[in-house]
Amino acid sequence: MFQSGEDNNRTELSELGEFALIDSISEKVKITQSSTIKGIGDDAAVVSYGGMETVISTDMLIEGVHFDLSYVPLKHLGYKAVAVNLSDILAMNAIPQHITVSVALSNRFSKEAVDELYTGILNACETYEVDLIGGDTTSSVAGLMISITAVGAANKEDIVYRDGAKDTNLLVVSGDLGGAYMGLQMLEREKGIFEENAKIQPDLTGMEYILERQLKPEPRKDVILELKTMDVKPTSMIDVSDGLASEIFHLCKSSNLGVELYEDKIPIDQQTFDIALENHLDPTTCALSGGEDYELLFSVDINEFEKFKGHPLFKVIGHFTEENQGYNLIAKNGTRHELQAQGWNSFKK
Amino acid sequence: MFQSGEDNNRTELSELGEFALIDSISEKVKITQSSTIKGIGDDAAVVSYGGMETVISTDMLIEGVHFDLSYVPLKHLGYKAVAVNLSDILAMNAIPQHITVSVALSNRFSKEAVDELYTGILNACETYEVDLIGGDTTSSVAGLMISITAVGAANKEDIVYRDGAKDTNLLVVSGDLGGAYMGLQMLEREKGIFEENAKIQPDLTGMEYILERQLKPEPRKDVILELKTMDVKPTSMIDVSDGLASEIFHLCKSSNLGVELYEDKIPIDQQTFDIALENHLDPTTCALSGGEDYELLFSVDINEFEKFKGHPLFKVIGHFTEENQGYNLIAKNGTRHELQAQGWNSFKK
Repeated sequence: MFQSGEDNNRTELSELGEFALIDSISEKVKITQSSTIKGIGDDAAVVSYGGMETVISTDMLIEGVHFDLSYVPLKHLGYKAVAVNLSDILAMNAIPQHITVSVALSNRFSKEAVDELYTGILNACETYEVDLIGGDTTSSVAGLMISITAVGAANKEDIVYRDGAKDTNLLVVSGDLGGAYMGLQMLEREKGIFEENAKIQPDLTGMEYILERQLKPEPRKDVILELKTMDVKPTSMIDVSDGLASEIFHLCKSSNLGVELYEDKIPIDQQTFDIALENHLDPTTCALSGGEDYELLFSVDINEFEKFKGHPLFKVIGHFTEENQGYNLIAKNGTRHELQAQGWNSFKK
Repeated sequence: MFQSGEDNNRTELSELGEFALIDSISEKVKITQSSTIKGIGDDAAVVSYGGMETVISTDMLIEGVHFDLSYVPLKHLGYKAVAVNLSDILAMNAIPQHITVSVALSNRFSKEAVDELYTGILNACETYEVDLIGGDTTSSVAGLMISITAVGAANKEDIVYRDGAKDTNLLVVSGDLGGAYMGLQMLEREKGIFEENAKIQPDLTGMEYILERQLKPEPRKDVILELKTMDVKPTSMIDVSDGLASEIFHLCKSSNLGVELYEDKIPIDQQTFDIALENHLDPTTCALSGGEDYELLFSVDINEFEKFKGHPLFKVIGHFTEENQGYNLIAKNGTRHELQAQGWNSFKK
């Protein structure tokens, strides 16, 4: 914990050069997909999907904005950078198959640090059966930036957009919410203590689950595969990156619908719940407004209810309504409140 | 010239917010390709190529490393950022059809500055019939970063890799070389003069061509279309981004060949030539080692010679040999020299 990205066993990037750096990365990349015609090593990558649709998503992560290397190990950062992109492909009900990775980094980073980062990136590739097929590495004036593009495939009739929800559809979410946000709060708290007194070692026992939710999120490929097994095609879907409320708004706006969300149905893990209360935070607010859970939020026909009732991967948390009914949170005490979205704005400090 | 990215008529990004910024960009994006199933507005973009191969390339540009906003207008920067990615797709003998654009920028930039940047990006999209189908915008701690992924399509049998050259093939290049490098030298020189004395206005008359080569390069889609018209499929191809020598080395190494390059055949524009000499630079060295020309360099069967002889778009500059013959430059005076590659290393200052 609380190390910098540096290392005593250090190879300067300026000595290594860009081509050698790319070579050292390329050597580690294994091609596993039969759809990869050409990966790293030419001007561009070639993939063939035999007539399926190609799904493409991209994300940029900036040091000091999206991550803090004082408590995020580079290996986890690499893993998470891939995970968040795969999550976007999965949210289309498509299977991610390829990524490109561009990295810019300052002289502060050594070759060994870059190796750590790519170890995490390639771990995620292996876990999710995705090929790294290209990218770019370059120097930066300050800090580390990662830009990833993920590409996936799906049959045309399987792709799920945000705009397909109907006014009687159920609203379903996978897993549990708010954990990644609570994990971040605890990391920030311990960082503050450490900065005041470096002798105090961080105490993060009993927080393993929420830390893992923050540092090493897992995109829900299992959910997509389970939906196929259950023979359910969602009518609309999105991944929960900015907080539940913000994502519900996206589905409602795209589908021109209102919503009723039941507070008592929102899935919150016990550790998230307990640590939120200990820190004088409302667990529901953490779930509604805390981001980075990377669960899947989707709508299904009301006739699918029996398939989801009691299913360990899913929770039915509400239902859509006509647009003029508005966005409503039904609180645990039965009172009705207007749902507030507090999506994350990286430009606001 | 020499303005910053700022403007008196200024909307702060911190006030605007990320979603509003994305909206303001999305509004300007027109979808023109029938292969675009879904562009901006969902978790990921969907494209359908009906069984053709999908070609993907990505590049990252960092302020202070790849560009200097003191003399690069944001509109040109946006255009060039797209152009260099399309060039990579074209170098596969594929037609670029889609791009994703991720931008990170500090508080120093206003909404108006972002508009300028995207005006250039969308101008390039329009010129080259490419759809912007997604991306990411976020804040940065310092400076501007642009990451672009380009996607194109080609029939499987049309794609050209770097490794297909044969030992009797001709080496051909489009356009002329060294201009972009000379343009950069002149911009740097005028910047130096301006910094010493702000009253001296930059004098760049008679440098229009080399400045355009540096500031607004055009990827050679026309070359790819002309090759199809000529019924020529190159055996290997690469775009000239790092300098002619470096790119020749890439083709030779990928194809396990040697090369003979004739100095007197290297196409150098008169303006490039004259300004190089005025500045005590060797024009051939500018062509061999100066980057960013974005011409196409390729190999063709020797039987195609008649098609290229005297063709206004092309110059036959040498031929490949067996690998053990090495990399040779035949100088104007007939002497033979080992070809030196001086590719650009962004990690070296």
